[in-house]
Amino acid sequence: MGTSTAVSGDQNQTSASAPHRSEALSPSSPCVVFPDDAPLRLESGQHLAPLSIAYETYGTLNAAKSNAILVCHALTGDQYAASNHPVTGKPGWWDALIGPGKPVDTDRFFIICPNILGGCMGSTGPVSLNPKTGKPYGLDFPVITIGDMVDAQVRLIDHLGIDQLFSVIGGSMGGMQVLEWAARQKKRVATAIPIATAPWHSAQNIAFHEVGRQAVMADPDWRGGNYHDAGIVPKNGLAVARMAAHITYLSEKALQGKFGRNLQDRAARSFSFDADFKIESYLRHQGSTFVDRFDANSYLYITRAMDYFDLETAHGGKLANAFVGTTTQFCVVSFTSDWLYPTRDSKAIVHALNAVAANVSFVEIESDKGHDAFLLDEPEFHATVRGFLGAAATKRGLA
Amino acid sequence: MGTSTAVSGDQNQTSASAPHRSEALSPSSPCVVFPDDAPLRLESGQHLAPLSIAYETYGTLNAAKSNAILVCHALTGDQYAASNHPVTGKPGWWDALIGPGKPVDTDRFFIICPNILGGCMGSTGPVSLNPKTGKPYGLDFPVITIGDMVDAQVRLIDHLGIDQLFSVIGGSMGGMQVLEWAARQKKRVATAIPIATAPWHSAQNIAFHEVGRQAVMADPDWRGGNYHDAGIVPKNGLAVARMAAHITYLSEKALQGKFGRNLQDRAARSFSFDADFKIESYLRHQGSTFVDRFDANSYLYITRAMDYFDLETAHGGKLANAFVGTTTQFCVVSFTSDWLYPTRDSKAIVHALNAVAANVSFVEIESDKGHDAFLLDEPEFHATVRGFLGAAATKRGLA
Repeated sequence: MGTSTAVSGDQNQTSASAPHRSEALSPSSPCVVFPDDAPLRLESGQHLAPLSIAYETYGTLNAAKSNAILVCHALTGDQYAASNHPVTGKPGWWDALIGPGKPVDTDRFFIICPNILGGCMGSTGPVSLNPKTGKPYGLDFPVITIGDMVDAQVRLIDHLGIDQLFSVIGGSMGGMQVLEWAARQKKRVATAIPIATAPWHSAQNIAFHEVGRQAVMADPDWRGGNYHDAGIVPKNGLAVARMAAHITYLSEKALQGKFGRNLQDRAARSFSFDADFKIESYLRHQGSTFVDRFDANSYLYITRAMDYFDLETAHGGKLANAFVGTTTQFCVVSFTSDWLYPTRDSKAIVHALNAVAANVSFVEIESDKGHDAFLLDEPEFHATVRGFLGAAATKRGLA
Repeated sequence: MGTSTAVSGDQNQTSASAPHRSEALSPSSPCVVFPDDAPLRLESGQHLAPLSIAYETYGTLNAAKSNAILVCHALTGDQYAASNHPVTGKPGWWDALIGPGKPVDTDRFFIICPNILGGCMGSTGPVSLNPKTGKPYGLDFPVITIGDMVDAQVRLIDHLGIDQLFSVIGGSMGGMQVLEWAARQKKRVATAIPIATAPWHSAQNIAFHEVGRQAVMADPDWRGGNYHDAGIVPKNGLAVARMAAHITYLSEKALQGKFGRNLQDRAARSFSFDADFKIESYLRHQGSTFVDRFDANSYLYITRAMDYFDLETAHGGKLANAFVGTTTQFCVVSFTSDWLYPTRDSKAIVHALNAVAANVSFVEIESDKGHDAFLLDEPEFHATVRGFLGAAATKRGLA
């Protein structure tokens, strides 16, 4: 096995084709590179090398290395959970949750947030250069799974010399990684908080992802995945994919309350195809800003990994088998208005954990904000995370 | 006012750009043309002439012309409610409901089903030739409303010499037309059955339509709406729009029950972007077959009309005002698992009708088939329609 090397990225192969491209090849954050002689074996049977994992940390690792929390991000998230995004300049996506004195307290814990395998902010993904060709992988990148993402994160945790994570936390696809960590690395996960997630991807979830992928692939600028060569990005297709996905992130009630049938900057219908309604304007904005910070091929690969996620089938058709022998303490969180990963999905996780007599608490948060609630300032949710981590830390003798 | 002329379509301007194009310009069904000197005044203030309304009929109009039922179709429907589709060859979309001895009994009633204004099966729409240019309207076609569709249908009913319709029936957007008929033509509608519909389009409904429109407009083959000139159609964009919409037509439970995570013609995941899952294969099929029978610009105009539909705002902010003075007998039908137009939307209609002491019955059908239930063989739904029409006909002395 080779020696991993910490780099800060100086590959120089940046391109003007998209603002995020330079971050993919040369991230602003720390990045560890595992060399060619230590390939990552993927679920598909393929091997990937070299492997880069870009990550951010917040807080300080204690001498016993016992206060580390791994934060796993969702589909379009990245390592900048609690720091400004290098492309958009916006605060971290979990800035409300992570920081000094916040529910995930950086005065107490050492938080590690890696960009996932397949991502586009510095970890190896389809934008990365294929060592065989010197060009971006594109569709030559192997199809990956949530388990592969976790195996790549294990490399990072090994590199940081951490034996056991005090906690693994994540929402949505981040929650799927939490479940895979708990299933694959039973001794290395003291506590786990899977939030607004599911043990498998439903037909409806797959359907929405397939619409998004077809939208990207229908864009002639996608060019079979080789758009980087041409210095372009399939922005129209990716924007449509983002718009469709965004509908699933909000509850019907939240959409109605936030936008209703209100018109955008006009007193009456225009009798045209302008964005007459606020909801149209909002979606168009979501679509158009997304393409500046995200890679279209990464979107294809990550949605595919989510569709492939089925912890039950992977464990002989019995979800509880995934957790046999677990000593992890779980806190499962769902939101009442989340129709992407509804409470019944979280309950399936809880039932499986109960079946193996795991230590599990379950909290369903009353919220009308839909799936996105896990990213927002939901006091009851924050109190739940703060309380669970605080009690578990005290129990484990953490300062 | 000019004289309407019945034609069977011989304009000869057909094109190979899409199989449905010839039907748009020269429909297989009867078609009535209202000439230039009888323009239709639209809600936008614009005027449309000439106006063609293509329609099918089933059964026989009695001597008193008192047994006529107008059937209003939904977004992607057409006049072929109970006869084979001239492009696809498939049975009519409401073949289960309309026919001899069926709930809408052609032995007893005379059924009229017009293609809507803005449609692409022979009624005037964006595929029609603009008399000013001799070319298809494209985006020069005026933006229309559900009310405009109804006003165009009124012309047809006048042409057929029918004073009062025994019933106006429709599901989804067809139900919106039913409501507009009841509001605009109070004396001409004896009974009305709005099914799986709403008195206004919600933010979530608008959002899904906007995604579809952006998918169409993002397709370079759309060419600003002038694709017919180039002999092409924006099939990729329209297919994506159809796929996204199709998800909303089925309930989550129906998708899970019908497809679940089942694989399509394979034993294991392919680790590729093939249609591994049955749900992916199904959606791709829905998208690719749709483009052969539907016009992309019609899709834009009709979804826009639906988004603009808000019977409450149109009546001074009070829905009940739409029905003041009504003598129509209503039967409002919803389906439990319909999340596109959920039961609460139907209840809003019922409450408004109650507020003006209208004669209304309301039936919520238990079904796990989602919005599409109104097109399917749902015994309780069919029994409801049969019972309501039968009792009303007997009451009115129809044979």
